[in-house]
Amino acid sequence: MSAARLQVSRRQRATPYTPRVEALGVSGFAVVNHTILPKGFGRSEQLDYLHLREHVQLWDVGCERQVELAGADAARLAQWLTPRDLRDMQPGQCRYAPLVDEQGGMLNDPVILKLADNRFRLSIADADIGLWAQGLALGRGLDVTVDEPDVWPLAVQGPKSDDLAARVFGDAVRDIGFFRFTWLEYAGHEYLVARSGFSRQGGFEVYVEGFERGAPLWDALWEAGSDLDIAPGYPNLIERIEGGLLSYGNEMTRANNPFECNLDKFCRVDGAIDCIGRDALAEIARSGPARRIRGVIFDGEPSPPCRHPWPLAVAGVAAGAITSAAFSPRFERNVALGMLERDFWEPGTRVSVDCGDGSERRGIVSHLPMEEADAGL
Amino acid sequence: MSAARLQVSRRQRATPYTPRVEALGVSGFAVVNHTILPKGFGRSEQLDYLHLREHVQLWDVGCERQVELAGADAARLAQWLTPRDLRDMQPGQCRYAPLVDEQGGMLNDPVILKLADNRFRLSIADADIGLWAQGLALGRGLDVTVDEPDVWPLAVQGPKSDDLAARVFGDAVRDIGFFRFTWLEYAGHEYLVARSGFSRQGGFEVYVEGFERGAPLWDALWEAGSDLDIAPGYPNLIERIEGGLLSYGNEMTRANNPFECNLDKFCRVDGAIDCIGRDALAEIARSGPARRIRGVIFDGEPSPPCRHPWPLAVAGVAAGAITSAAFSPRFERNVALGMLERDFWEPGTRVSVDCGDGSERRGIVSHLPMEEADAGL
Repeated sequence: MSAARLQVSRRQRATPYTPRVEALGVSGFAVVNHTILPKGFGRSEQLDYLHLREHVQLWDVGCERQVELAGADAARLAQWLTPRDLRDMQPGQCRYAPLVDEQGGMLNDPVILKLADNRFRLSIADADIGLWAQGLALGRGLDVTVDEPDVWPLAVQGPKSDDLAARVFGDAVRDIGFFRFTWLEYAGHEYLVARSGFSRQGGFEVYVEGFERGAPLWDALWEAGSDLDIAPGYPNLIERIEGGLLSYGNEMTRANNPFECNLDKFCRVDGAIDCIGRDALAEIARSGPARRIRGVIFDGEPSPPCRHPWPLAVAGVAAGAITSAAFSPRFERNVALGMLERDFWEPGTRVSVDCGDGSERRGIVSHLPMEEADAGL
Repeated sequence: MSAARLQVSRRQRATPYTPRVEALGVSGFAVVNHTILPKGFGRSEQLDYLHLREHVQLWDVGCERQVELAGADAARLAQWLTPRDLRDMQPGQCRYAPLVDEQGGMLNDPVILKLADNRFRLSIADADIGLWAQGLALGRGLDVTVDEPDVWPLAVQGPKSDDLAARVFGDAVRDIGFFRFTWLEYAGHEYLVARSGFSRQGGFEVYVEGFERGAPLWDALWEAGSDLDIAPGYPNLIERIEGGLLSYGNEMTRANNPFECNLDKFCRVDGAIDCIGRDALAEIARSGPARRIRGVIFDGEPSPPCRHPWPLAVAGVAAGAITSAAFSPRFERNVALGMLERDFWEPGTRVSVDCGDGSERRGIVSHLPMEEADAGL
């Protein structure tokens, strides 16, 4: 956390869950998509991490704003936006998909939900992808509307998520496949429930339609979890680093391409689909990326937060940079994500880490997700 | 300020001036365009307001990100983006301009700088207008590049601004007309200096090219101001409310049109120009807007910060909503901006204000900028 406080105004939007997280003592926020995202509840991130791996948490992820594409050209626009082949996607499926510009630079990495053949939603990371999509549609004259619907995601994450969600939505939640969604009823309303979320501990994202329905659903889940050790949570930095979950704006920016982000399998560049950046991506696919995201595990005191990339070196040669870092109580080491240059990206490579705090730390490049065996410094 | 802290990460970008404002004890931040904006230095906003009206302040407004349009179709794209007629705009001019969508909804209110006939920069409020502009250009096949250049605005604001800026850039700054800019030399580099800024106290915005040149220019201005009572500052809520300066996302959102924002004179809807939203705006111009932004001055204790619109009523009838509020030491009243419905927007109309803190306050609709005479509750 910074010692500086977040200025409150209408411009940094609250969510339906904001009064609930405030009542629970939220101690920090980030801002994502002009919306506040809780990032702490007065306990350490390490305790929140240990809890997430064992119990169940409710996360206010209302900042995952939705971009809805609807109309005759919705599928055409969705496909134009991403190099991931969407042609065989079925209603009820979610797909993680890179969005890129004409040079192949990463613009976002949403989860795309297909609601119907002519209706898609992009659950976006931090950037106004609605403006990008609407500009493209207007410029090209596509028959599609682009809107931000009144939808406020609420995440249930952790190993007890199935038990908790089943108490509210019924046992049908247990049958939802990974990255699938269905509509389930609670208190007379239908909720879109997807098995997804920004952790590796299992769980659901509920795409709540209607701001006014958010708080009652939060309350229902909270009360149903009273004997499950339920706690408020948030995307946990330690857990997502170990799990190799990328944060747009942190691990990658527009200066990076999807291959650098290990998203090779989501880039269909053989000409089978019409997507922005296809030729640039095909060229990168031919030559191979110059760098890739890897894990880095490093020793020393718990590291400060990573606010700008920290240089990595191998025998004095620039080897890449760390972009996110935290201390893992499981590994008893600092864990990090970073961009490693081609000559140094092999797991097991020993690197030195400069956190900008005057110390030089010993580190090792790791697989993602990280395994216990990776931590052998 | 909220009691909650701002989570630090690479995603919420620092500016060249961040180390300087941190050394000066910055106590709060907002996030604008994925970039941090200082919003306090441990003194009260009232003291900062009084200082701004008397002396000179340096503001880290690096969050005013730039969208550069360059190429054969740059002027065509710039004009397509805004209903303000840009045809007679000359290099060296700045123009405040609403950007709207097809329905006439406000997307942003940048200052547009014309650098050359085929080169424009939009100095934007909080939204990814670069994505909007690039999507439009790509969709329509325009011959224009859209980029975010490495430019970091630094504002000099307050009545001593001319004296301060002249010590660094020479007396030529005194000749810059309002909303005009020129290139001036300091220490061997050229800087784009505009007479503009987000206050009514006079001053300049320096559009610093090259991140690495920001801190040295900050230092030069800071040292030159040592006998001018220079202080660090930021867009001051009290001053901008009194001055009627609008904040995108606070006073207006996409749900509002430029007429509601009193920007009628910047809407050329007679068909003379090709701009997005023209037909929708022409229709609104015919019927007149249903509401308009006005000042509201109201009594009682210093109000809490306005995080979501506060209802206004006239004899129990809904009359509009307040969107920003602060206590003015000059008026010895709370001052506010809000959207007033047509029947109630006449200055002098008495309204009751519900700040959500349980009290009902007496208020009066005012002109903008506010005048002393408006405060007669």
